[in-house]
Amino acid sequence: MKIKIESPQVLLSEGEGFAVRPADIYIEEDKIISVGEKVTDFVPDRTIDGTDKLVIPGLINMHTHNYMTVFRNLADDVSFNEWLFERVMPREDKMTPEDAYLGATLGIMEMLRSGTTCFNDMQMHIHQTTKAAVDAGIRASIGRGLSGDADEEGGEMRIRQALEEMEAWKDEPLLTFTMAPHAPYTCTGKYMQKAAAIAREKNVPLHIHLSESTFEVENMKKEQGMSPIAYADSLGLLDQPVIIAHCVKVDDEDIRLLAKPTVSVVTNPASNMKLGNGFAPIPKMLEAGVNVCIGTDGAASNNALNLFREMGLVTLIHKGAMGDAESVSAVQALKMATENAAKALGRADSLGRIAKGYQADLAILDLNAPQMMPRNNIVSSLTYSANGSEVETVIVRGEIVMENRRFTRIDEEWVRSEVRRREV
Amino acid sequence: MKIKIESPQVLLSEGEGFAVRPADIYIEEDKIISVGEKVTDFVPDRTIDGTDKLVIPGLINMHTHNYMTVFRNLADDVSFNEWLFERVMPREDKMTPEDAYLGATLGIMEMLRSGTTCFNDMQMHIHQTTKAAVDAGIRASIGRGLSGDADEEGGEMRIRQALEEMEAWKDEPLLTFTMAPHAPYTCTGKYMQKAAAIAREKNVPLHIHLSESTFEVENMKKEQGMSPIAYADSLGLLDQPVIIAHCVKVDDEDIRLLAKPTVSVVTNPASNMKLGNGFAPIPKMLEAGVNVCIGTDGAASNNALNLFREMGLVTLIHKGAMGDAESVSAVQALKMATENAAKALGRADSLGRIAKGYQADLAILDLNAPQMMPRNNIVSSLTYSANGSEVETVIVRGEIVMENRRFTRIDEEWVRSEVRRREV
Ligand SMILES: [Zn+2]
Ligand SMILES: [Zn+2]
Repeated sequence: MKIKIESPQVLLSEGEGFAVRPADIYIEEDKIISVGEKVTDFVPDRTIDGTDKLVIPGLINMHTHNYMTVFRNLADDVSFNEWLFERVMPREDKMTPEDAYLGATLGIMEMLRSGTTCFNDMQMHIHQTTKAAVDAGIRASIGRGLSGDADEEGGEMRIRQALEEMEAWKDEPLLTFTMAPHAPYTCTGKYMQKAAAIAREKNVPLHIHLSESTFEVENMKKEQGMSPIAYADSLGLLDQPVIIAHCVKVDDEDIRLLAKPTVSVVTNPASNMKLGNGFAPIPKMLEAGVNVCIGTDGAASNNALNLFREMGLVTLIHKGAMGDAESVSAVQALKMATENAAKALGRADSLGRIAKGYQADLAILDLNAPQMMPRNNIVSSLTYSANGSEVETVIVRGEIVMENRRFTRIDEEWVRSEVRRREV
Repeated sequence: MKIKIESPQVLLSEGEGFAVRPADIYIEEDKIISVGEKVTDFVPDRTIDGTDKLVIPGLINMHTHNYMTVFRNLADDVSFNEWLFERVMPREDKMTPEDAYLGATLGIMEMLRSGTTCFNDMQMHIHQTTKAAVDAGIRASIGRGLSGDADEEGGEMRIRQALEEMEAWKDEPLLTFTMAPHAPYTCTGKYMQKAAAIAREKNVPLHIHLSESTFEVENMKKEQGMSPIAYADSLGLLDQPVIIAHCVKVDDEDIRLLAKPTVSVVTNPASNMKLGNGFAPIPKMLEAGVNVCIGTDGAASNNALNLFREMGLVTLIHKGAMGDAESVSAVQALKMATENAAKALGRADSLGRIAKGYQADLAILDLNAPQMMPRNNIVSSLTYSANGSEVETVIVRGEIVMENRRFTRIDEEWVRSEVRRREV
């Protein structure tokens, strides 16, 4: 398939920041083959009119539990303990694989609608989120959530499932994988080291939760005499590619460890606030050179899967918390959702930018939406004014998966009726 | 005009909270004449299918400077001083009445699109925001921004303009007015007292900015030996209906004063964060019984005019700042944007609720948007999941002013071309 997007405004990476310039985009198969430079003898199968449109790299949601989308709004304005133990876990136990597929598909609908073309997921129903992603045509990085011990049956079983998932989808170009030990409070050290060894062998990143709450950090200090970050480092987990969700309750020494070139941090502002965990020290991390990405976490704790909202939050809340209007800029937020994420996934050379040779993962936005006018600063408008509904068309690996807000592969009617059928 | 909305889900005020229930809504002229109860011999001019729709009271944006919408995204990630003195003020000085009308209309487009049916505005180009509101069919409470001294020509002129505006539009049912002294740092005490006397005489609320920044509070303490809130109280301003924007930097004694039954506070979470002013102590104010409303402030400092975003922020940021997942609930946020606002405007008996006899100011949302599924808790979904784009149709005073996202009165094409023409 050959696609030409004719003279839209394009968000281009330039130096430390971004530039917005008009340029034709030429797509062939899964790749962008030219931006701005005329390709001779290019006969497009599809031409998209770029008038009053903005093309941005598809956003990358770096921390999700997508199957949980069916749990949206089940437990709000309640304590973390009530949320987890009384509301979420009992339902999670009763969840069928079909529920998980449905939840993942619903989450993917919301993500595509708001310009996300790739998500990094931790899940527990194998073959469901993977299949939902492939069916919908969205890119995903998948980690089977691991918990337990290295010599224990459950723990071993979950590692086998992770490997089985990787093997089953090894030829699917939309999918990559992680090894995903859930957290140090649900995994033994030995078990996490085993997962890490497999990750090195398979050449995939680790994906883990660390330092989300004060309770977790205090406990770890009692048990191991160190913070969760320092503990993970002591096990060697930070010396190979690792994607760490949360890092809310971290001190300066933790941040020094997180600045290792192998480490990426995923901040989840809405989820961290909603569960009462607070604000991660993102300005300090950026200062220290940490590769910061951004995620929504699951819909049970957010309760949206919209990266435009998260970009708005990450720029606003630290300005508020630090009393500093210059803290965390629009440019930094956009980097988190694009280039930094690509780097975390080991895909800096193929994802997260609109440039020749990169994967054709794009979102096309309507610049005529009232909130996008006037065009005084389009980069600013993406984090401070946009709400995600400006996204009209989404392309993943050169395929149009949403056009004028209609999905080309997902059967919305089916999703709707299945979701309604399950409501209590 | 008679309108019937057939069996939508309806957000109803019930006790201290809300209930969502299916009900037919009957509208005649400007009023809701029945909710749920069949009206015999009602022959609607228009019937709206409510299947998979949610009807909510139109949201009320309690603090705007709507003409400034043309300044959106002109000055982001910069200090308050650079924002105000280098970026905003020079442009404000060059603004024409036509620019102001255009800015107000663009702001109204964004507000209607996100379900706002009324806004409380402070402005400086008389006859522009008022005309824009009336032309668009949105409800507005208008205050000519006042600054200066009681015996000074400029100050007197601005009061004359305020009175002229009230007089000119006195028969327009969409409009009500406030007397709007800008702030104690731009008005003398005597001048504010004069404005207050006129407000009492005209039976309209005061609208003022107080305690937005530390700088302002420190200065006032130096100059008057008391906080801006205490100073306003010492002048008697808090003993008549008064709408106070910001109240970010307030102490317990200030909060005690703000709890007077004549006072309403408007919190502007995005603006307060964006300019580095921080978080207003909303949980404490709610505890003290303060009537808290919510606003966007102007698009130059937000940079959106979307109350769904502000409701999301007011519930999330205080949970984050207080470390308490139970702080500021979805119900409280919805009250701020509806009933509390109506009370602040002196319209508790006619605005802010869907009930018999109330004004027909409504927003109709699409419950099939992915982020609104599943319907586990619709009240929660309005603050934690919705982004405003769910709003399809808006009714103000019984008139459909937006239908399926198309404005019935605003010429979008004209606005767009005029905005584009003014871009640099
Ligand atoms: Zn998580
Ligand atoms: Zn203001």
